[in-house]
Amino acid sequence: MMTVADIVGRIGRVARWEPDARGRLAEAALELYAERGYEQTTVADIAGRAGLTERTFFRHYADKREVLFGGPMPELVEAALREAPAGEGALAVGRLAMLAAAGALPPERRPFARKRQAVIDATPALQERELLKLDSFARLIDRALTARGEEPAVSRIVAETSVALFKVAFAAWIDGDGGNDLTTLTEGAFVALGRVSAG
Amino acid sequence: MMTVADIVGRIGRVARWEPDARGRLAEAALELYAERGYEQTTVADIAGRAGLTERTFFRHYADKREVLFGGPMPELVEAALREAPAGEGALAVGRLAMLAAAGALPPERRPFARKRQAVIDATPALQERELLKLDSFARLIDRALTARGEEPAVSRIVAETSVALFKVAFAAWIDGDGGNDLTTLTEGAFVALGRVSAG
Repeated sequence: MMTVADIVGRIGRVARWEPDARGRLAEAALELYAERGYEQTTVADIAGRAGLTERTFFRHYADKREVLFGGPMPELVEAALREAPAGEGALAVGRLAMLAAAGALPPERRPFARKRQAVIDATPALQERELLKLDSFARLIDRALTARGEEPAVSRIVAETSVALFKVAFAAWIDGDGGNDLTTLTEGAFVALGRVSAG
Repeated sequence: MMTVADIVGRIGRVARWEPDARGRLAEAALELYAERGYEQTTVADIAGRAGLTERTFFRHYADKREVLFGGPMPELVEAALREAPAGEGALAVGRLAMLAAAGALPPERRPFARKRQAVIDATPALQERELLKLDSFARLIDRALTARGEEPAVSRIVAETSVALFKVAFAAWIDGDGGNDLTTLTEGAFVALGRVSAG
């Protein structure tokens, strides 16, 4: 089976936190969302807190929501699906896609991800946006598996199950003590599914 | 294993369509949502189309969104979780909960469910509400399994996977030719999971 390192290597991209204008804006936005609430924070507030202009903000993010949803995860999922070896079974392909998603959140991103999650948990509209994002990954996996010749029923089940397992791993990563990285937790969820559905 | 008929029998409730004021209001609402769009339809429009007063509308539904989300599914899921026999494994309990959800939508509800889905598909805010509803079922299952002494990781994986399988069955029920009822499709999704995760 391919590892996430293989995938990241193949697509020549490493998702990492860059402490530049983009990163400063994201940190400032999260601080303000946590302090005042998401709704009460404006782009001007965020730019001000980061010591940058609104124009700079809009060079990096389309709007204040994109600060929370503008990460490389969808591209990494798509790349993993494109690059998944022809011989892999359906669940193995779903697993590769979700390991690629996990690769978008290396350990050093955990403090940001935790703050982001706290903001999302406090804002129903953002919770719904987050669910819709996960749902879009299921649709990507479903489409890729169907294109690989899997039965539609199998494609859908694997797609939804893979995303469900990633959700579980992500929650464990956010809520846990940081001892396990997201990739390990995602692997673990796929292994646990095998145990649960056999037992 | 318990069947959905056992569950429905135990809780003494049969979810069925009642062609009374409540049913007429729901039909009128769906017609109008399909014709004009959900946002452009008012409660007054719905009551008028059904030949009833707004006051009657509000005796049956809190608002125009509840027409789409006011079914008995959450109660049936909760009842199934409460009534699940002590000896059942985690995935068997998740399966019972989702079979109970399927029991809220007997074959005669399919025309309504299909129209409802078309409205939801056309309205992003409703899609998000629908995802949030499914997510709430996962939280109910997770909580029930943890209360039964399952490991938290197992509870979460089974909860999310069960809801994922129900989503797949529901989509197949809506998109298919109606040859299989939702209960059969839900059973089938759980069986297919076993095959997919073994293969």
